[in-house]
Amino acid sequence: MDTEPLRIAVVLFEGFELLDVFGPVQLLQAVPEIAVVFAGPDGEPVASSQGVEVVPTISYGQIELADVLLVPGGKGTRRLVGDESFLSWLREVGAQAPWVASVCTGSAVLAAAGLLEGYAATSNKRAFAWASSFGVSVTWKPKARWVQDRNRWTSSGVAAGMDMTVALIAELISEAAAVDAANFAEYEPHRDCEWDPFARINGLVPSSGDKAERGDVTFGQSDDAHGR
Amino acid sequence: MDTEPLRIAVVLFEGFELLDVFGPVQLLQAVPEIAVVFAGPDGEPVASSQGVEVVPTISYGQIELADVLLVPGGKGTRRLVGDESFLSWLREVGAQAPWVASVCTGSAVLAAAGLLEGYAATSNKRAFAWASSFGVSVTWKPKARWVQDRNRWTSSGVAAGMDMTVALIAELISEAAAVDAANFAEYEPHRDCEWDPFARINGLVPSSGDKAERGDVTFGQSDDAHGR
Repeated sequence: MDTEPLRIAVVLFEGFELLDVFGPVQLLQAVPEIAVVFAGPDGEPVASSQGVEVVPTISYGQIELADVLLVPGGKGTRRLVGDESFLSWLREVGAQAPWVASVCTGSAVLAAAGLLEGYAATSNKRAFAWASSFGVSVTWKPKARWVQDRNRWTSSGVAAGMDMTVALIAELISEAAAVDAANFAEYEPHRDCEWDPFARINGLVPSSGDKAERGDVTFGQSDDAHGR
Repeated sequence: MDTEPLRIAVVLFEGFELLDVFGPVQLLQAVPEIAVVFAGPDGEPVASSQGVEVVPTISYGQIELADVLLVPGGKGTRRLVGDESFLSWLREVGAQAPWVASVCTGSAVLAAAGLLEGYAATSNKRAFAWASSFGVSVTWKPKARWVQDRNRWTSSGVAAGMDMTVALIAELISEAAAVDAANFAEYEPHRDCEWDPFARINGLVPSSGDKAERGDVTFGQSDDAHGR
């Protein structure tokens, strides 16, 4: 490659959700034109929501020239939304990044940092009431697998980050690269950003019975059977 | 909980595939009755296929009393299948574990260790010819999202490990726990172990046009469009 790779910086913090990070990263790192760096507070290993620790490649202070800033969700976001020092740093690097993306409750952190003002966004469907309490003029979408509004990309909970990432690769690199990355991972992505059975499962929208949700009927019934 | 949790030991090695590990782990750690440990060669951080390093919780020598031994795939498996010291260790701990599972090319390693003799199994669909060259009396299935044969569980490539894990949770804990774990992750799993469009995409079976594969038609066409 003669050109510089597209640089994606993933923001790690104590209590990040594992799949919020490694679902997207699995897909992104299958694309030769993309390079991923992992930023931690100080370069020391960072504990996930699930406990297991990951070694960041750079510290927060070393994030520069990131083309895409990607903020995952997880238990740690509950603390971050009140961490003015972190939010101030995120606001600054987010304002400089050409694209800003989040998975799951990462959008609550973006909103708390003021990075979603005037944008539409979504978040985790179990934590939607909490997440959507942040920001002043954010148009929160309760039913969406992911939302792209200009250069802001926000996905629903956890696994939704993989579907958003396939769309992001298609947008930033090419459709062929997106399909290749998904096929390499033997992952069949949802390509419709409005597909979202979890909005209904979590009571955010009434059951519509529309065709787009047909695929989750059996699954939804299993869930109903043991109380949600 | 009064009872001991079900103990799942994930075998980390240099060059493990990220989603092979963290897809299943995301789901497993959503189940209160399950505890996951990460075993590395010597307790030092282990580099994934994608470069980023993970800190194991125990060393190989400390794996004991694991109920499920889970071996991921990744570039590192190419070396492991020729590492007699590793294979000998794996053979021993695998023989003691009530359940042995693999994701992706992890099944090549299990087969090389002799742990799949007399069993049916599957593997990554891009690396299927290579993976299925291991073992003497392994019945390799070219078209399967995952294969369960008694206490051996093997999945297809990367993301297929998540679908196998949902089935594994349903088998070892309960259907309700499996659905809860998937819903928590906003993941819609494939519940049919015979669903496998990637066998066709990778030329392992002819296009059948059968109903089970209907869902991947659009996706498959995108793939066709840029040459597979």
